[in-house]
Formats: sequence, C-alpha cells, structure tokens
Amino acid sequence: MLITSVDNPRIKELCKLKTSKGRKKEGKFLVEGAHLVNEARKCGCLLEAYSLTEKEGYITITDNVMRKLSQTDTVVPEIGLCRIVKKEELADRILILDGVQDPGNMGALMRSAKAFGFDTIVLGEGSCDIYNDKAIRSSQGAIFKLSFIQADLLEYIPALKGYTIYGTNVVNGIILAEAIASDKLALILGNEGNGVRKEVQALADKNLYIPMHNTESLNVSVAGSIIMYSLRAK
Amino acid sequence: MLITSVDNPRIKELCKLKTSKGRKKEGKFLVEGAHLVNEARKCGCLLEAYSLTEKEGYITITDNVMRKLSQTDTVVPEIGLCRIVKKEELADRILILDGVQDPGNMGALMRSAKAFGFDTIVLGEGSCDIYNDKAIRSSQGAIFKLSFIQADLLEYIPALKGYTIYGTNVVNGIILAEAIASDKLALILGNEGNGVRKEVQALADKNLYIPMHNTESLNVSVAGSIIMYSLRAK
Repeated sequence: MLITSVDNPRIKELCKLKTSKGRKKEGKFLVEGAHLVNEARKCGCLLEAYSLTEKEGYITITDNVMRKLSQTDTVVPEIGLCRIVKKEELADRILILDGVQDPGNMGALMRSAKAFGFDTIVLGEGSCDIYNDKAIRSSQGAIFKLSFIQADLLEYIPALKGYTIYGTNVVNGIILAEAIASDKLALILGNEGNGVRKEVQALADKNLYIPMHNTESLNVSVAGSIIMYSLRAK
Repeated sequence: MLITSVDNPRIKELCKLKTSKGRKKEGKFLVEGAHLVNEARKCGCLLEAYSLTEKEGYITITDNVMRKLSQTDTVVPEIGLCRIVKKEELADRILILDGVQDPGNMGALMRSAKAFGFDTIVLGEGSCDIYNDKAIRSSQGAIFKLSFIQADLLEYIPALKGYTIYGTNVVNGIILAEAIASDKLALILGNEGNGVRKEVQALADKNLYIPMHNTESLNVSVAGSIIMYSLRAK
C-alpha cells in the first residue's frame, strides 16, 4: 500500500494521536524512528508500521505524509502505531512521580528506572503524559518494558504495604549514602519547580537528600537517577 | 529609561546575542528570569538588566520588546546582559566533554558538576555552546560558578598531569563502584549518539561503566551525574 496524501483518512486518524487527549481516547500512540519501531515490535504492541521506502510489513508513505505525522523537525524514516498496553505489575522497586512535568525528564526517568530495576512507575496527578513524543524518545524504548499505574498518591501510598517509602527532601532527610536498599522500596520524586507536595512527603517512611556543594538542587531526572542507582536491585 | 520599539538600536544589538556566533563576537550573552539575573549580578558579570516593570537599576522595556529578546515561549519578567568571563582555573575534579551536543544535557551537567565539585569543564570540539539559552536555563546558574576551558582533547588530555583520567565505556571498563575517588581526577563524557571518540577513550587511565538491567545506555547527563556523585569531592 502507498499513501501519498495527508488528507488520507487513515493519516487523519493517526494525526489525532499527536495529542494526549487523542491518545487516551484511542488507546494508541505513535513512535518515531527504526529503533523505537523495533522495540515496539519486540514487545508485541506494534499495530502498524509506516516507512518512506518500500519494506515488507510496512505501509509506504511519501515524504509529505511523514512530515505530517512526525513531531520532530528532522524527517524520520519510519513511524509505528502502537497500542497502549495496561500492565500494572508491582515490581520490588517502584518509582512514584508526584507531578513531573517535563517530557524530557519523564523519558530520562523511564530509561533510568528500567536500568536500575525500578520496573513500576506510579504516576500521580499532574504528571506528564508518558506517551508524549518527547518522553517516548527520551525513554529510548524503556517505555515498552515498564509497568505504569495512574493513581491518587494520597490514597495509593498508604495502601502500599511491605515497601519502604523514600521521599526526597533536604529538610529532616537522611543522606543518600545512609539509605538502605531494602528488598521492596518505593522512591517519590516531585515536580521540577515545587518538589514533592508536603502531604505526599508526609507519607514517606524517610526522606533522602543528596549532599551537594554550593548548589540548591539537581535536575529531577538526575537526582532520581542517582538515588535509583544507589538503591538499585542487585 | 524606557524602550518601546523592537527597532531600537540597543535592542537590535542584543538580538545578535541569540546566536552562538554573535555571542562569540561580542563576548556577551543573555540570561532570562529573575533567578539568573540575580546569579549573574552576584558573580559580577551582569552588565545591564531589563525589566517589564520599573525597577531601580533596570532599563524598562515593553512587552513586545521582551518577546523579541526572549528565547522562550512564556514571557519572562526580566533579562540580563552578561559578559563572558574567562576563568580557566583547574579544579581537583574536571569534567571533560567530548561533543555533548544537547543544550539540556549541557546545562544539567553544569548543574551536577557544580553540585559535586567538578568545578572545571573542558569543552572539546563539537560540544554545544554553553551560552545557548537552553543550556544556561538548565544550568540554573551553575554556569556562573564554573571554569570553562576550550581545548583540543587529543592534545589537552595527555598534557593533564597528576590527574587520574576516567573514560566511560562498557568494553574493558571497571564497574563504577570499584573506581577510586583520587585527589585529582578527570571524567570524560561523550556525544549523545556516539559516546566518547575511540582516540579520546584511549587517553583514559581507566574506563568506567554503570551496571544496568536490560538497558543499553543512560542519558549522558544522567550517567555523568551518577559518576560525578560517586566520585565527588568530600
């Protein structure tokens, strides 16, 4: 099959997936680039694939159509249509995000979470859509290998039994080097500007902080990754 | 003073600082937002400050002029004109960047470098301009507190005496936990897509790697920050 027009009904349908609302409604999302298309195929969530060149198993589309579908400035050679798979398994290490808003941070956190065995991410209200194109790109495919749970943190955290809950706060915190990588643990990270909400902070067993020189704070994906590395599953 | 026109010659001069070429030629750069303007003032490199509202020591500009100067979508209340200060001190911990290209990564690395005592950053060819607006924003002011050295890494690294040089590579590497935080050390990080060039890698005393589960790599600012945290100055 060859699609040459941006007005093709199929393409119009795909374009709806550029918004968070469209993705939620359809239960689908797009990924760009050969690496992510392959990762989606391996994880069994690839529904269709589109390529600029004729390839078996791909629908061929022309340059103008690819530009219409793509959300990056550079032209990608392929785009994949994926279905959102609900996978709500609870790993022994959980990352809880209380309003992380930047898609680049969200993606980097997914990538680090996978690397350090935090295989479940709990998304509180106000967190960035994980299927945002930039978040997916920054995740480098980790998005296909993690479980995600949407939750009201004020209800979810108290119900999480058997886990040591670590918050992040300099005030009343212990330094990271003193934290114990217990069998089951959850780490709470907060919003880029405001950190973890006080009422969520209060639900933690302990607060951690990273010792720093002459610096108030770190980027949230950096701070989170340092803590996940330090408390990683061995 | 009040400036209302985007055609004002002073504003036109400032607009030249939006490009790397213009900044190099003039030896100046712009920062956006009250936090960065204050940091620039504290560090003694603020030349002029522009505000939407009348404030002592500020040149008042109108909304249209601010939009013209600003490189973000949201309107910032103030912008500062800063001079580029050459400060080439060698700290005991040095971060060497071999072609880190993304401004967000560059800024996050500056922020982490400051936090962990890597107070000198050596910029090899192909590295992103540190005065890029996004890099400055992500640095959260760390840019004012670090020394920067532009260098040809193939000449610079062999001439760096008394430092343990750590490269980053999984192949022939030792795990990070086994690295020793010696008195003087340098860490080399590479380009987002290609890593550290082979010929630069060859100049390291040892290569480090971060153990990961089912993941090929981490975001460079995340990986660099984890290593800087682990080898930080105490």
